Formats: sequence, C-alpha cells, structure tokens
Amino acid sequence: MKTPPFTRTRLEEARADLGHAVHRTPLIHSTTLSEVAGVPVHLKCENLQKTGSFKVRGALHRIRQLDARERERGVITISAGNHAQAVAWAASAAGVASTVVMPEAASRTKARASRGYGAEVILHGTPGEAFEKAFELAEERDLTFVHPFDDEHVVAGHASCMLEILEDLPDVGTVLVPVGGGGLASGIASAAAVKAPDVAVWCVEPEGAAAMHRSFELGRAVQLDSVSTVADGLKAPMAGKLNFEILREWSRGVVLVDDDAIVSAMKLLLERTKLLAEPGGAAGLAALLTGATPDPRGPVVVVLSGGNVDAELLGTLLLDG
Amino acid sequence: MKTPPFTRTRLEEARADLGHAVHRTPLIHSTTLSEVAGVPVHLKCENLQKTGSFKVRGALHRIRQLDARERERGVITISAGNHAQAVAWAASAAGVASTVVMPEAASRTKARASRGYGAEVILHGTPGEAFEKAFELAEERDLTFVHPFDDEHVVAGHASCMLEILEDLPDVGTVLVPVGGGGLASGIASAAAVKAPDVAVWCVEPEGAAAMHRSFELGRAVQLDSVSTVADGLKAPMAGKLNFEILREWSRGVVLVDDDAIVSAMKLLLERTKLLAEPGGAAGLAALLTGATPDPRGPVVVVLSGGNVDAELLGTLLLDG
Repeated sequence: MKTPPFTRTRLEEARADLGHAVHRTPLIHSTTLSEVAGVPVHLKCENLQKTGSFKVRGALHRIRQLDARERERGVITISAGNHAQAVAWAASAAGVASTVVMPEAASRTKARASRGYGAEVILHGTPGEAFEKAFELAEERDLTFVHPFDDEHVVAGHASCMLEILEDLPDVGTVLVPVGGGGLASGIASAAAVKAPDVAVWCVEPEGAAAMHRSFELGRAVQLDSVSTVADGLKAPMAGKLNFEILREWSRGVVLVDDDAIVSAMKLLLERTKLLAEPGGAAGLAALLTGATPDPRGPVVVVLSGGNVDAELLGTLLLDG
Repeated sequence: MKTPPFTRTRLEEARADLGHAVHRTPLIHSTTLSEVAGVPVHLKCENLQKTGSFKVRGALHRIRQLDARERERGVITISAGNHAQAVAWAASAAGVASTVVMPEAASRTKARASRGYGAEVILHGTPGEAFEKAFELAEERDLTFVHPFDDEHVVAGHASCMLEILEDLPDVGTVLVPVGGGGLASGIASAAAVKAPDVAVWCVEPEGAAAMHRSFELGRAVQLDSVSTVADGLKAPMAGKLNFEILREWSRGVVLVDDDAIVSAMKLLLERTKLLAEPGGAAGLAALLTGATPDPRGPVVVVLSGGNVDAELLGTLLLDG
C-alpha cells in the first residue's frame, strides 16, 4: 500500500490556515454541458477565485509558513501571469512585502494587476533571463523565493480545492485538471489520495506544452526546450519534481488536447454558461468534449483553473472561429 | 397609503409555482466592483438563469396559468431574443406547444436556441411585421399570446427575483435594474413594495431606447418611433402600461446610460468578475459607475438581467475599445 503524499490532518490544517481569506468557489452543475458530454458535468469555478485563478490557495499557504525573519525580508517570485498576481495578493493579505519579476513580454494588464495588489514589479528580458534575475535578486536582497508549483506548502494549499469538491459532491467519479507545472493537479490528487482514492484524477495538458506527459513517458520530471500553446497559463516548460512524483502515483495519467479544442471549449463555456475561463482554464473541458479521457465515470468535475485573459486576445479568439 | 400592486401572498404563490424549475440564481459580492464604486456591490446573476436571462421566471408562471383548453392549443409570442428562448423553454417545461415569431433580422443563434428548446420558429419581416404576424397567427390557430412584459402573471413571476435578493441580503439599500418594457423592474418593485418598501429601486435605460423615461416625463406609457442602442435586450420601443403604472408608484425613477458606458461596464464585468453579461444586462452597473444614480444607499444590488450575446458581437466590442 502506497503512502499518500500528505496526511489528512496536514491537508485539513492547510485548509484551515487559508480560512476565509480565499473564496470557497462555487461548484456549478451545467445542464447544457452534461447533455453535450453525455455525463453529469460540474464546474469547479477557480476562475471566480481571488485574483482570477486557483494560485492564491498555494501562494497564501506558502507565505503563511514564513518565520518572523523571512516575513520581515519579504518574498520574490517569477511569473508571466497568474502566479505573479497570486503572490502579490497573498503577500499583501499576509502583510509581507513582495517582488515579482516578469518577462518583458508579459501582459501589461497582469503587470498592472500585480502592482495593484501591492507588489514591486520588475519587467526583465526573456522568460529565462527573468528567472535568473529573480534568483539573483532573491540572493542579493535576502528574499524568500515562492515557487509556482514545486513546493510542498504550495501543493498542500492547492489541495483545499479538492476538499471543497468532495464536500459539495461526495460521489464525484472523475476530476479533470489542467496541468502546467502540476501544482494544482498534484494538490487535487493528494487530497483524493487520503479522502477518496477511487476518484479518477486526470491531468490535461496542451499538446504544445506537454512536459508532464513527457515526464510520465520517461519516468522522471523533464524540462522542454520550447513550448507553444494558446494556453498561457499552462506554458511552464518543466514538470515540477514533487508534482510529478505525486501525479505518477496518484493520478490516472496525462491526456493531451490541441489548441483548437481548447479554444472551442472556452467559447462553449462562455456561450452556454456565461463563465469566462482563460484558454488554459478550459483545457479540462476540452479533454472531456474531445473524448481524450475515454468513458469517464460520472459525475465529472471539470476544474476551471483560471479566468484571466486579456480583452484583446479574447476578442481575437471569438472572431477567429 | 398606496396599495401595492400585488399582495405578499400572491407573490409568494407565484414563487412557489415556479418551484425548482428555474434557478435560484447566485447573488455574488464583488470586492473589485465595490472598490471601484465606493459602496458594497452585489451582483444578482440572472445571466446564469435558465436560457441565459430572467425571462423564464415570468414566462413559466404565465404559461402555468393556462386552463386546460389553452394548454391544449398552445402559446405564441413575438421576440427577437431572450423572451423567445424563455417562452420556448417554459412551454416545453410545462408540456405546452409554442410558436415564436421572430423578425428576419433576429440572431440565427437565438432562433436556433428557441428551436432547440422545442418551439416552432417563424422568421418574418420587420419587427413591426413580425408583431402583426404573431397576432394573426394567434387568432388563426387559436393560440394564447404570451406578452413579454405587459401582463400581471409575467410581472408576478419576475418578482421572485427580488424575493431571492431579500433573502440573501436583507439589508439591501438599492437595486439597479435594466429596463426594456419594464417587466423585470416592475416585478422587483412589486416585491419591494410588500416586503421592503425602503429599498430604492432604480430603473436603468439606454439613452437610445428610453421609452420608460419618456413615459415618466409625460405621465403615461408611451411608444417610441425608433430606438437605437447596443443593448438589444432593452430595445422594446414601448413601456408596458401595467409596468409603467407600477414603476411610477414603486420605483425611485429612471436613469439613463449611453452605449459607451454600457459596453465599458460589460467589459469590466468580464475582466474582473469573469461573468458574461449581454450589453443590456450590464446597464445597471453602467448606471452605478457613471454616477447616474447619485449617492446610492448601500449595499447595492446590480441585476445582471441576461448574458446572451453572440460571439461575433462580443468579439467586436472587445476589440473596439
């Protein structure tokens, strides 16, 4: 018998630590999507979470683990998007200073939002250069680096999402989770491991950024040379080591979806449920509708992991098809 | 002391009649919008209602009042949009046949949706010609005409929206409601009249389709020669007689918003709350953000009356600004 990555107590403590600081997001049943998919479909609306994505769950729990000295110094991270906003927000919520390094090409909206949540935002070079810069600054200024996914506190924080799902829908059969580095999926799988091991947790990745899929094939967490997908939020070019270890044991596997399927799912969500998911946030629904997860046991929970998409990109996607 | 348009018992019966057939839509607090508006803001999400708008509340209650012979014959209506879908859906839900006449220029998506809900859809001429056609057919085929707003059962059905608001937020100070013909607003004002007469109910109309505003000025329900606004759902060229009588007594008045303010509000909703409202559905928020309702007493409930907007129009609006 495998040992689950976290004890039930550890995960319940993480959830209690978050308290009411993050939203208990709604789980919404969709009649239309259930008819289309041929199985009862419920949407876990992390797009309605604080800052517009699930990321605050892990970021806030991580920041609350800092000791007095670390709190005093502050935190730093690197992100082009949702994790940047989450760390900025969570640090403010915890009364800790934050620095966010973003690549020059990062969306101005997201940079502005991160500043709005109280972070010092530094725009710097390519994604690779921004990563270097963040590590440099962490050392130079003695800041704690908050990893976007490969961190046990981050994963334990994300697990709270699955605890809520299990409360709202105890007989859930399948959960479909978008995967970038694997933070949310490994949190969900960790909670399933101790609370509901029969639930089938499936990871969903875009074909153009399939680091976790490749890691499953090779049996180790890999880094990709390049990634290309419309799903910005899932563009992490590597699978997290801890995340891979958890998902290898506690998820059913990784399925792939292409960009067209992702955009179609995003449009269908908007048209029929009036909910805005970002492309990456709609990847789980894309997997369900394309049959990438064969014959999923219902009811199915599709995790809408985020809803942050620039008006311009959204407008373009809506007019392109 | 004025006599409210409906007794408390009558409105509670209408709500009980609807039962669980329509959604009890969520009332969502928005931190971001509260900060922008400087007053606590809650969104009543009728965009998440069955068929994507509040219209099913009145349509279903109306159809359930039919006698056996009328049920046998079926119902007919005229609408270019939300009311068409609502009658089609409500008639199916009540096991009654429905015919919907739509102007030729009506959105193909909405015609398809109405057919999907089980109606016979007849596309015919201009809006005026379609209206004539519907009356002709009603006579010819002996069908009951379901008016989109000027009908006491329709208004009593819509009042259920306000009963839910009062349960979720008993201390609500102000409610902002978009107005086309006045069906939803008069329902909300009727419920406030018997349950919470201190609540300020404000009607919000687009400048280019201000029939209710003009009716308030002239002291009688008027018809306009022409209307022009981005808010399709609020394009009714006349104020309902019953609706005007109720609103004159039981609302605080009518405020106007222009199309730019409506589109900005729609975009802000999508960007910050991830909720899709159609332009007309966002008119209440536009009124709040432009200060059209001076110094509203909080907490404020903004009714998002609908979320049906074609992908192409939405894409265009997102790219235009």
